[in-house]
Amino acid sequence: MQAVGRAFGHNFTLEYGDVGGISIDRHGTPLTDGVRELATSADAVLFGAVGGPKWDDPSAPTRPEDGLLALRAHLNVFANIRPVKVYPELTDSSVLKPHVLEGVDMVVVRELTGGLYYAQPKGRTQTPQGIVGVDTMRYSESEIERVLRVGFELARGRRGKLTSVDKANVLETSRLWRATATRLADEYPDVELEHALVDACAMQIVLRPASYDVIVAENTFGDILTDEAAILAASMGLLPSASLSGVPEAGARTPGFYEPIHGTAPDIAGQGIANPCGSILSAAMMLRYSLGLTEEAAAVDRAVQTVLEQGYRTADIATAGDAATGTTQMGDLV
Amino acid sequence: MQAVGRAFGHNFTLEYGDVGGISIDRHGTPLTDGVRELATSADAVLFGAVGGPKWDDPSAPTRPEDGLLALRAHLNVFANIRPVKVYPELTDSSVLKPHVLEGVDMVVVRELTGGLYYAQPKGRTQTPQGIVGVDTMRYSESEIERVLRVGFELARGRRGKLTSVDKANVLETSRLWRATATRLADEYPDVELEHALVDACAMQIVLRPASYDVIVAENTFGDILTDEAAILAASMGLLPSASLSGVPEAGARTPGFYEPIHGTAPDIAGQGIANPCGSILSAAMMLRYSLGLTEEAAAVDRAVQTVLEQGYRTADIATAGDAATGTTQMGDLV
Ligand SMILES: CC(C)[C@H](C(=O)O)[C@@H](O)C(=O)O
Ligand SMILES: CC(C)[C@H](C(=O)O)[C@@H](O)C(=O)O
Repeated sequence: MQAVGRAFGHNFTLEYGDVGGISIDRHGTPLTDGVRELATSADAVLFGAVGGPKWDDPSAPTRPEDGLLALRAHLNVFANIRPVKVYPELTDSSVLKPHVLEGVDMVVVRELTGGLYYAQPKGRTQTPQGIVGVDTMRYSESEIERVLRVGFELARGRRGKLTSVDKANVLETSRLWRATATRLADEYPDVELEHALVDACAMQIVLRPASYDVIVAENTFGDILTDEAAILAASMGLLPSASLSGVPEAGARTPGFYEPIHGTAPDIAGQGIANPCGSILSAAMMLRYSLGLTEEAAAVDRAVQTVLEQGYRTADIATAGDAATGTTQMGDLV
Repeated sequence: MQAVGRAFGHNFTLEYGDVGGISIDRHGTPLTDGVRELATSADAVLFGAVGGPKWDDPSAPTRPEDGLLALRAHLNVFANIRPVKVYPELTDSSVLKPHVLEGVDMVVVRELTGGLYYAQPKGRTQTPQGIVGVDTMRYSESEIERVLRVGFELARGRRGKLTSVDKANVLETSRLWRATATRLADEYPDVELEHALVDACAMQIVLRPASYDVIVAENTFGDILTDEAAILAASMGLLPSASLSGVPEAGARTPGFYEPIHGTAPDIAGQGIANPCGSILSAAMMLRYSLGLTEEAAAVDRAVQTVLEQGYRTADIATAGDAATGTTQMGDLV
């Protein structure tokens, strides 16, 4: 942000808040009221990642992820937008044959504040027959409609195809999801709507990725499919996301929540080898959709592109023989 | 089955029952009492597949899949075993680079009679705020324990590694799942237990498939991951499954339910181009685990292997330039 400020003559006010494990350790809760208010009053939030083995005890009363989930819900950012971009420079690092990646350009819209993650009842209870665990997948028609509309609008501005993902042959929430998508399709005659079962989509997204334009999915389904889609980008370390309360608009100044799709990667913590591009590209989305700075956003996207074109590779995208670039150096180069 | 009977001197009694769409059309229900009893009294059930656009209306009172789900539950086949085998002959047909597939040999154990598929409440209700849909993911400790034990036992007889899949950073059922896996691990000191989050696993299963031995997962997670794992096998048309009420034992004569992992593929119905190998290999699993015929099972596996080695390819695994072999011819060749 400071580099963008210097290059374009802006003065960003950056404030920092702890969420997750560090907040549990310092304040006994993964999200304090203070940080929640800081996030609410900010023009936008750029989020890191939370979680780690230190806080993984299944019997812990709270955990780092609760802070993230509370913040997403509190900010009402129900549409998590995850573009999947393929850099042709990285085909050597990909497990996929080059022809599969030709023409891949998709955006996944993941419902982020409902579904299996949030609904009640949710808990574990001791019964005479032993412990029973429960989670609930619940959606109202309006929750489904608002996130589907984000998908339709995005598709309209792109290649005009929307894939609505569900498991309508088994789940009632999915039947409601599918019926809602079908109903809305009448309002978007310029968009081709396709329904896909989540299991089939998990196969096709890697087999025929170029056939997708915009995908919309329930919270858990979207979580799984976007981690999987990282296979297309060669590394999950490259993928950004924007979480919004509506349709993203370039140049808009509406609040949003921005985070890379990767987690804390505890296995490589402290080694200085993580890929910073997912975070950097999330900041670019923030510039574009929340700070009204589209030129600046494009400059950041281009900077990442250029550094990759020049052959710099963090360890996650290095091929045997490449000398890997560290996190700090990669950031400085961009 | 008749070919096996002729070659090995057995007389199989085959009885046929309709389940799914055909049963809805003829009897108004996807599973009649008669067929349920036929399945219960049989030594084993070899299942086709159900579903299709004709019965896809989200407001239909029942659908083909309900018949399959009812049958699985009725037979109490809680452990759905899906081996993922890679035929080196098919690397040309794969979207993956050959090195990724080296050494891949995994089995996914999918919990099949609980979780999000079955638990109540489940339904759609009209409320003053619009329709609300609900599905429930519920597991008791004993349901989790019995399917995890199948995973531990299988791993013990293989490479000794078990990956337990969950979303324990968000779901309560997953915390119970993870705690149960950790508790059972003490009883299996010869098995290395690893926990994986379902989203991370959906990425790693394609990036580093050779690192997996046995995977155990909740019903929905297992559904998604096994369709995805079909990418490794080049085509889902090649993958069989066995659903059992316990640990599979070669040479055993315990009832079981066998089905390919693919569905009805309505887009190619009636063209005679489907791959019959998933069904044929399911029959081999049936011979092995339910009919006490291990030699016969091995002969069927070898027959499929040989036909592929000889270069015969159904359309799903044909590469440009191959003349595709039809369903019937492929079956005859095997
Ligand atoms: C950390 C975790 C709670 C989170 C999620 O599941 O939403 C992560 O996997 C993600 O995809 O952002
Ligand atoms: C047809 C459908 C109900 C079934 C399932 O989800 O179990 C299928 O996808 C499978 O994997 O066997």
